Amino acid sequence: MATRHFGQPVRRNEDPRLLTGRGTYVDDVHLPGMLHAAVLRSPHAHARIRRIDTRRAQALPGVHLVWTNQDLGPLAGPLPLLIPHPALRAKTQYALAPGIVRHVGEPVALVVAESRYLAEDALELIEVEYEPLPAVVDLEEAVRPGAPVIYPDLGDNIAAHYVQEVGNFQEAIRQAPHVLRARFSLERGAASPLETRGVVARFDPQDGSLTVWDSTQAPIPIRNGLAEMLGLPQQRVRVVAPDVGGGFGPKVMMFYPEEVLIPLAAMRLGRPVKWIEDRKEHFVATNHERLQIHDVEVGFDDEGRVLALQTVFLHDCGAFAAYGLIIPIVAECTLPGPYKIPNYRAEFKAVYTNKTQTSPYRGAGRPHGVFVMERVIKRIAEHLGLDPNEVRRRNFIQPGEFPYDVGLIYQDNAPLVYDSGNYPAVLEKCLEMIGYDRWPEVREQYRAEGRYVGLGVAFYVEGTGIGPYEGARVTVEPTGKVFVATGVGTQGQSHATTFAQIVADQLGVDPADVTVVTGDTALFGWGTGTFASRGAVVAGNACYNAAVKVREKALQVAAGLLEARPEDLELAGGMVRVKGAPQRAVSLGQVARAANPLRGTIPEEWEGPGLEASGYFAPPRGTFAAGCHAAIVEVDPETGMVRFLRYVVVHDCGRVINPLVLDGQIHGGVAQGIGGCFYERLVYDEHGQLLNASFMDYLLPTATEIPPIETAHIETPSPLNPLGIKGAGEAGVIPVPALFADAIEDALAPFGIRIDHMPIDPNWLAERIREARARVQEAR
Amino acid sequence: MATRHFGQPVRRNEDPRLLTGRGTYVDDVHLPGMLHAAVLRSPHAHARIRRIDTRRAQALPGVHLVWTNQDLGPLAGPLPLLIPHPALRAKTQYALAPGIVRHVGEPVALVVAESRYLAEDALELIEVEYEPLPAVVDLEEAVRPGAPVIYPDLGDNIAAHYVQEVGNFQEAIRQAPHVLRARFSLERGAASPLETRGVVARFDPQDGSLTVWDSTQAPIPIRNGLAEMLGLPQQRVRVVAPDVGGGFGPKVMMFYPEEVLIPLAAMRLGRPVKWIEDRKEHFVATNHERLQIHDVEVGFDDEGRVLALQTVFLHDCGAFAAYGLIIPIVAECTLPGPYKIPNYRAEFKAVYTNKTQTSPYRGAGRPHGVFVMERVIKRIAEHLGLDPNEVRRRNFIQPGEFPYDVGLIYQDNAPLVYDSGNYPAVLEKCLEMIGYDRWPEVREQYRAEGRYVGLGVAFYVEGTGIGPYEGARVTVEPTGKVFVATGVGTQGQSHATTFAQIVADQLGVDPADVTVVTGDTALFGWGTGTFASRGAVVAGNACYNAAVKVREKALQVAAGLLEARPEDLELAGGMVRVKGAPQRAVSLGQVARAANPLRGTIPEEWEGPGLEASGYFAPPRGTFAAGCHAAIVEVDPETGMVRFLRYVVVHDCGRVINPLVLDGQIHGGVAQGIGGCFYERLVYDEHGQLLNASFMDYLLPTATEIPPIETAHIETPSPLNPLGIKGAGEAGVIPVPALFADAIEDALAPFGIRIDHMPIDPNWLAERIREARARVQEAR
Repeated sequence: MATRHFGQPVRRNEDPRLLTGRGTYVDDVHLPGMLHAAVLRSPHAHARIRRIDTRRAQALPGVHLVWTNQDLGPLAGPLPLLIPHPALRAKTQYALAPGIVRHVGEPVALVVAESRYLAEDALELIEVEYEPLPAVVDLEEAVRPGAPVIYPDLGDNIAAHYVQEVGNFQEAIRQAPHVLRARFSLERGAASPLETRGVVARFDPQDGSLTVWDSTQAPIPIRNGLAEMLGLPQQRVRVVAPDVGGGFGPKVMMFYPEEVLIPLAAMRLGRPVKWIEDRKEHFVATNHERLQIHDVEVGFDDEGRVLALQTVFLHDCGAFAAYGLIIPIVAECTLPGPYKIPNYRAEFKAVYTNKTQTSPYRGAGRPHGVFVMERVIKRIAEHLGLDPNEVRRRNFIQPGEFPYDVGLIYQDNAPLVYDSGNYPAVLEKCLEMIGYDRWPEVREQYRAEGRYVGLGVAFYVEGTGIGPYEGARVTVEPTGKVFVATGVGTQGQSHATTFAQIVADQLGVDPADVTVVTGDTALFGWGTGTFASRGAVVAGNACYNAAVKVREKALQVAAGLLEARPEDLELAGGMVRVKGAPQRAVSLGQVARAANPLRGTIPEEWEGPGLEASGYFAPPRGTFAAGCHAAIVEVDPETGMVRFLRYVVVHDCGRVINPLVLDGQIHGGVAQGIGGCFYERLVYDEHGQLLNASFMDYLLPTATEIPPIETAHIETPSPLNPLGIKGAGEAGVIPVPALFADAIEDALAPFGIRIDHMPIDPNWLAERIREARARVQEAR
Repeated sequence: MATRHFGQPVRRNEDPRLLTGRGTYVDDVHLPGMLHAAVLRSPHAHARIRRIDTRRAQALPGVHLVWTNQDLGPLAGPLPLLIPHPALRAKTQYALAPGIVRHVGEPVALVVAESRYLAEDALELIEVEYEPLPAVVDLEEAVRPGAPVIYPDLGDNIAAHYVQEVGNFQEAIRQAPHVLRARFSLERGAASPLETRGVVARFDPQDGSLTVWDSTQAPIPIRNGLAEMLGLPQQRVRVVAPDVGGGFGPKVMMFYPEEVLIPLAAMRLGRPVKWIEDRKEHFVATNHERLQIHDVEVGFDDEGRVLALQTVFLHDCGAFAAYGLIIPIVAECTLPGPYKIPNYRAEFKAVYTNKTQTSPYRGAGRPHGVFVMERVIKRIAEHLGLDPNEVRRRNFIQPGEFPYDVGLIYQDNAPLVYDSGNYPAVLEKCLEMIGYDRWPEVREQYRAEGRYVGLGVAFYVEGTGIGPYEGARVTVEPTGKVFVATGVGTQGQSHATTFAQIVADQLGVDPADVTVVTGDTALFGWGTGTFASRGAVVAGNACYNAAVKVREKALQVAAGLLEARPEDLELAGGMVRVKGAPQRAVSLGQVARAANPLRGTIPEEWEGPGLEASGYFAPPRGTFAAGCHAAIVEVDPETGMVRFLRYVVVHDCGRVINPLVLDGQIHGGVAQGIGGCFYERLVYDEHGQLLNASFMDYLLPTATEIPPIETAHIETPSPLNPLGIKGAGEAGVIPVPALFADAIEDALAPFGIRIDHMPIDPNWLAERIREARARVQEAR
């Protein structure tokens, strides 16, 4: 494999455009004659709709359409279930709520008017009479007998009850020399992309074609679903995910109500319609994630080797479960991580509550699993008086043990088999970088200064790059410039650079001469989307496969032009040259032109005209990245404020395409992880009202809260794809809760404070420190 | 090959839409904010532009842009040469004329304004000072020494002088027992599609994409050329040839000035721009065809066997030759037709004149060749006192002699080799249908009644289905409906039906469930266009190749679903069934869905997701159709008016896809042929002014002028493509001038009138009859 650009810190192709304000986000789509939509949302977490009167809204001049559920015809029923599971009793939401609303923010009515201003005015003229019903808010309360039931036909609030087991946990725990029990939890949070959701739709009645601009992570499934729901051929529906200002998971949901309503309105009205979610809507109408409560029981031997582990946990679905059981399944499958756990049992209940629906958010259950496992490692170490890293070492899967079958079934329904890795190397590198050997003395120095400084470590294994497949088409134009179109969408992953590097190497051109277009179903219509750290692995290898075909074709055509054998040619600098006779050369553009003649014929062996090929990559199972984060934090014992003194990431995602891009992904993930540990928590009251639905109250970390991050990369290439790469998109965020808890516990070791849930905040921490000091006082 | 629908008179898929007025022609494209263009055209056939003052036009409120040549920047130079030839001294036209205009109607300035009305007003405010130059109008005058020269750098008006020879004409003519000489000519005519040309262009500055609606026969080359000329990537240019109201050849030109000017104006102005050619413009601004003057010398033996044939001819290019030498080369290559001519020499001069440019028009030189050859056959028969059909029989290539190498190089630069045919069968069938055996008595009866009734016969061989290639993509959607996209455009050829039949047979569905989309580069971007009777052959076989791949994929995927072997399955009625166990079945839609899963993976042997495949067909050379027309006409000796009493067509275009569609093609061709024989002639005065540039003066035949046409089909399948088909689009028109002349000569045999040029008209014919009668009077 040619690797002139692969692995290099190539600067981003997308930056000149984005940094000069030439990005196109959905709200930048301005169409002549465009109307604007606004959505009336439920103010209740759970209520019966007794009556809706839209007459006054409809009478408002400039209002073109007011819809409630009963106006939706065949689309009045529930929206599709995205990922079914045999254990799932699936309930999905409606485009507009029928008789019952089940969370605050659920769409009740749609208004389309000349302006958003007018549309919002019209919302206020819609009269809805609600009969409030008891709200199911608390996750543990929701499963107690006698709790109010959201879906009477289910009899209780349990969406799914699912068990996976490896070995025999009961037997093993009985025999284990040491047994510990604990409870761990992560609370509800939101991905909070800078760009909220948005949809613009245009219908052309003349050829019956629908174009939809959608800030989605999965334009192709949206296209396919819209075609099905709206009764249009797929070939007549074009979905464009233009520049998307952050996705992080919630934008891979399909369908959100507005993604159906806006196209339907455009079709009915014959005019383009735009809807842009405002931030307040986003907090209640875009999917959340994270709330899981894990009860854990672990058995281990005197050496700290884990013999048996069980997690029994609750997962909060919110009011619907269109995304199925992906998060809890990923959580339980991520939990064992780098460790050999011979007897492992995971049992969860996914639970409906009267809150916004949940679906994967960067990490997608992995932070939960890692939090539990790494906390357990710490507890074992404490119990045995061992260094936690020694416990890690003793439980690690060893480099010679790959492929390693964990024994579970993963989210893609494939066996959970790790392809490659070198966990000891990653750990030791990380410990070396953070200065672990010297840490006891350093810590003592800080303590001597009266400072509460702690060092934490967290290790994880991350499943990435699952199927089913992605594809790409690579085209060399007569100018010699290269175009790549792929089905994945882009929300900041630098695909326009990394895919360009992959293709440039095969075609002997500069990555700057390779234009990558993503997220436009008109340009490439086969694929699934950007999620699960799969873009680079699956679409990247599809780009590679397509580029290899184009390379072969270029050599074949150039061989005819240069009267040479293909194997005697080389591609470099935009030229095809005879090796050893550099004056015998043609430009790649000339080859492209020759491959597409206007007269004559083309040889059968070309299998078609032009320097163009499509390629696909369909992995039978995912590839597994791993990493270790270490941090040194300082806690202010008076305010509870935490400051990072150092943050080290050692990461193994196989072969690195572009270290600049990779570090950007890691940095962003760590930042989002820190937000989820210390700043971002969605707070509901007992009525199911979200109390902090604004950036005034729901805090995001900014550059000043995020420390410099030191990174290093170990490369254990994946044997599952030609590029040897593994996914990295979620890596940064995954171990942060575990790490943060570990470091703070170390810093506050004198107070004996345990961190078993996330996020925490300075107040909570300060309170714990005060309590601990009081205990010390009392003890005196 | 499955042939449930192939060969059947399937009703047209396009008719419900077109017959209910739901067609979309370029003028039906209405875009918000659209501006309108008008073109200032030269009133002189040849003049120097001394001065252009556009200030008053620019000052007119509502005018957005006034351009002359000097405003065009890099596009100020000549437009591209479409088909080069080593013998061609090519001159091509300019988007806007620079210092010199070279024919009446040549674009001089462009105005874009709020409305067409305003734009036309602005044209009148543009002041142009012309210095008239001597106009070169007459074709023979143009090549006389001392004639004015249009391009001083060439020294004369000769665009090309080209000779092809088989055997040794000089030697053979010297030894021939009989030698005749004659001169034949066809005059200038116009294709006159109901829809004139039109262009709408929209540029989106945000993603730099250009969409152009163009009434072209070749949207893909237009896309490629626009990308090159405008400096845009091909991937960012979309050309749509929507419904096109007739093409017939002139719409395969590229580029007409407006096809560059309108997109360029849309880019500069940032608003959509429309230009629709009016009929008066069409007469002078859209390419003409036909004027050729052939001097012929033929040597033959006592049996009427042709031993040597030479044609020395002039071809009228008009002012430019962007389309190269296709017409005269096709003419000389078509001339030998079904006859074995051992010594053949063709020599032509292509000549520039100050008239509208010429390019192929339905038949594209073939009517010229057939006219000459069939007239020669008649002359030989007369000379020897033989029946012309006996002369035909004696010279025919015999069914056992295929492939037959004529010995010339054809328009596609490939050797002129006929693939298959049975000319005697075609002739005998035609003679039987017209009642040739009984004709002498029938004619005598008419004459006895004082009626001038004649029977004519004309035979031709037509090269069709040349390369370089076409392609198609066939997709089965989850609904089970099938989509076909191909690169050719459609101007009435019924591709939506015939391609659907081809695909339906492979996939076991009804042709009505197959939607064919043509002429949209966004849906299929590889191909050449619709011309040279190649659509069905080249694109049809590409559809077949793609459908076969999809069929194989469907069987492969269904085999998995049905737990059967692919070879045990059959496709029919939209289902895939286990043969002999019809209850074991899945719908084609279910198979399509299974082929594109959202989770899991797809097997490597699928080579990609979905029931979709692209296929190409790239013939190394064309296939050769043939046919014989016979007609009985009656001439009114007083008025010269001619009436068809019968019209018989026996046609062999290989395997027939759809006899309804085929007959429609034949009928339309015959109608256009009759127009070219008796109604349609472009008349220029000595200054190069076209005197009959309106449908008041340039007459098109209507339904009342066209007789019922009886057709029969002989099928000699082509061995060159899997469907065994040959082209038929131009067949109807090709022999009509030869036939018409033959029949009229027969009808007017008592007057000894010879018809050696076309078109003629009633006045001319009445005059000849009067002269003949006068001669008879004199002789008395």
